This record gives sequence, structure tokens and C-alpha cells, in this order.
Amino acid sequence: MGVKVLNIKNYKSYKKEFPYTYSFGAFATIEALHNKHDQLLIIVIDENFLEKEMVINLCIKRNIQYIFDNKFISRISPKENCYVIGILNKYQCKLEDTNHVALVNPSDMGNLGTIIRTMAAYNIFNLAIIAPAAEIMNPKVIRASMGAIFSINHKIYSSFDEYREEFKNHDFFPFILEGKTPLNFDLCPLSDKFSLIFGNEATGLPKTFNKIGQTIKIPQSEKVDSLNLSIATAIAIFTFASKNKLI
Amino acid sequence: MGVKVLNIKNYKSYKKEFPYTYSFGAFATIEALHNKHDQLLIIVIDENFLEKEMVINLCIKRNIQYIFDNKFISRISPKENCYVIGILNKYQCKLEDTNHVALVNPSDMGNLGTIIRTMAAYNIFNLAIIAPAAEIMNPKVIRASMGAIFSINHKIYSSFDEYREEFKNHDFFPFILEGKTPLNFDLCPLSDKFSLIFGNEATGLPKTFNKIGQTIKIPQSEKVDSLNLSIATAIAIFTFASKNKLI
Repeated sequence: MGVKVLNIKNYKSYKKEFPYTYSFGAFATIEALHNKHDQLLIIVIDENFLEKEMVINLCIKRNIQYIFDNKFISRISPKENCYVIGILNKYQCKLEDTNHVALVNPSDMGNLGTIIRTMAAYNIFNLAIIAPAAEIMNPKVIRASMGAIFSINHKIYSSFDEYREEFKNHDFFPFILEGKTPLNFDLCPLSDKFSLIFGNEATGLPKTFNKIGQTIKIPQSEKVDSLNLSIATAIAIFTFASKNKLI
Repeated sequence: MGVKVLNIKNYKSYKKEFPYTYSFGAFATIEALHNKHDQLLIIVIDENFLEKEMVINLCIKRNIQYIFDNKFISRISPKENCYVIGILNKYQCKLEDTNHVALVNPSDMGNLGTIIRTMAAYNIFNLAIIAPAAEIMNPKVIRASMGAIFSINHKIYSSFDEYREEFKNHDFFPFILEGKTPLNFDLCPLSDKFSLIFGNEATGLPKTFNKIGQTIKIPQSEKVDSLNLSIATAIAIFTFASKNKLI
């Protein structure tokens, strides 16, 4: 490939401290090859993978190094039936000045990945994360997003104020149980640049968000305490995307 | 309590073959005490649980036996920070002739629990499951539902035809990628007795469902292959419940 060959033996089972991460499985790795090839270091393929030609052709097209190493895959992959691994740099992006989802202190990596997959399904491609938060570039998030993480921009902010300062012109919609506007298609606001803001799984948004923008509540019965975060976010994204004709 | 004391030592780490199951944690167990006390065998409480008085009072009110046994809890609970365990019979219910969700061959227990939680949030209390399917009474489903499983009726059918025969008068809405009616608030059907039908996580509904009832597609971009099953179900439930004024 005309590039320096990486020594695959230096790569270990994933740890948060590493400057790199893994996409496990052909599906997520192909998404990385399509949408984030500038961050890919190398692709590792199992010789027995039936569709290896397709992955190899994409590697050649993107000028990404690939090797065959079954032992590496069984050493690094947490699950069986993994035939392709991508190794890539962790990265952040500059957010575009368009519709956003903003997650304040999300703690569950499965939820993060699922939310990213839903965002991509409704053409919302910018995600602000307010720290402390689950690690967005963890392989579990990549897997739960089915590779959709490589289609969106994400950026981590140390506080909500830092985020708000950068996107002053946005319409902010904090989702809280006591929100003023009930979410439904008729009342759903029209906006060119919205930020849909959600809090932590267990604690929701802090009370300070009552005074930010237009608060929204998602109607729900008294049979449940709350909705799962990825479900609440999906209902909001679907309603805003439908009303604002993003889909 | 005036009832025969169960020998707690006979209860083992959960297995599918058992005729009983567990609710792990105070929240899910309290939901069982409220809504399915007829199926509860015994409640096991950690002596150090701060809110034990509340659980004990509920046990007395419902005439359910309880014991303190920290060792049992640490032996049986798969996670730490579990202070209460309910042991209960596995059960099925008769479905009511009202709105349903019908899941054909669901395979993921986390999804099942999350879907049940969303159903309860939108006042849909009857769930048909078409086998083969993930085990609905598994403790993982109970936990993911946050105990909402005890608020709903569920019944397992060996085929979709068996289910359809029982509820001939229902309006059937299979959700498929090539569905005829796009899901949105304006086009969402009005129905007194709907069945929202979803397929397996990986394979969706079989093609035979193209000819059943009114097929619906959930709009989504080409950036993703599909939505997560619990997300697709939530978007459908929210839209149908809003349009039909269930919430």
C-alpha cells in the first residue's frame, strides 16, 4: 500500500486510556471505511470471512492498510463471530451550525450508540456531549450504533455553558418531566437550528434547565417512572424530524 | 404470616428450565408486589437496605412472606447493589380484546423489557409473543422493563395464525420496511382495537405479512439499515397512542 506497516502485536484488548479504538464486525468497519477512513489505521480480516473481497476492495479504494490475522481477532474481539476489526484513532469533530442532539452526562454506552443510530436515521448529524459522560469512542458505543457513529459529528464539552456559548443562535429544547410544552405533532416547534437536550438516565436534567429555551415534556402514563433514555430521545427526534421535514 | 415457610436454600441461580423467576432490585419487586402479588412466592430482603420498612409493609399488606438473607442475595443476584429479590412463579395471561403489541420472534431480552416499559407508558397493556422468542419471564426482561412487565398481560403463541384466529376483529398493522402507509401523525390510522406487529431484530417480518392488514413503514434515511427494534416499536406506539388519544 506504500505506507508504513503497523505492528499489530502492539495492539491490546481495549482500554479507555488508549488513543485508538476498535470497530468490531464487518458492518461497523465498512461504515468506518465509507465515512471515517481518514481515522482508520488498519483493518484486520479473518481469512475465513466469506465477504472478504468486498472489504479488501474498499480498503484499496480508500488506501487503507489491511492484514489477515485470525489470532489477533480472537484475542481482541469480545464476542465470537467477529470476522473484521478496524483499528482507528479516537477523534472529535467540529459541530456544524445546524440541528443538534445534546446529551448531558449520559452514562450508558448502549444508549449512546442507539441514540446515534436513531439520529442518523432522521438526518440529525451533530451530537454534543456534556461531560462527565460515558466514553463515546468506546467499542461498545460503536457497535451499538451499528457504525452510524462514523456518519455523525460528535464533540465533548466540559459544561453546558461552553456548548451554549458556541451555539447561542440555536433554539434550545430541554426535555424534562415537568416541561411546559407537551410533545406532539401539533405543538412540536418549527425550528431551523434546534438543540434537543436530554439528561442522565437516572437523574434527568438539573433544575437549572427549567430556565433555558423552551422546555418540553414527553407525555406518558403514571404506570412508569420514566422512559428509557434512548426511547425518549427517539420519540423526540422522530417528532421534531417529521414536523420540520427532515425526513 | 400464617403460610408455609419456603426453604430458600432450594432456590438456585436462574435457569430457563425453572418454573420460577426472580425480580432483582427493590423497584421491580415493588412493582410485582403492587401488580402481580398473586404470583409472588417470597421476598428476600438485605438487612442493610435503608427502605426495608416500606417493602415489609407492602409484604404485610399483600400477605406475602418475606425473609432477611444477605447471603442468598449475593449468591443469586448477578449484580451488586441488589437489596431486594422477589421470587415468583412464571405465568402467562389471557389477553384482553383491546389494543395490542405483537412481537414475532423477538430475540433480545433487553429489547423485550424496554418495549414493555414503553407499552405501559402509553397505556397499551397486552403483549402477544409469537414463538420462537426470547424468554419473556427471564430476570433480564423483568429488569429491563423496570418492573413494567407486572402491569401488562403477556401470552405466547406458537404461530401468528393462532394469535390472529383469537383476535380476528383486530386491525392488524405489520411494520415492514416496504410498508404501504408511511407512519406520521396525519396518516396514522384510527382504531379501537389495533395490533402493532413487529418482526425479529435481524430479519424483520416474513414476507407473508405483506398481505395482512395495513402495512406500515417508519420513515428513515438511507444512512442506516434499520432502526433498533425497541426504537421502532416506541415510535409506532407513541404515534398510535397519540393519534388514538390513549395518552
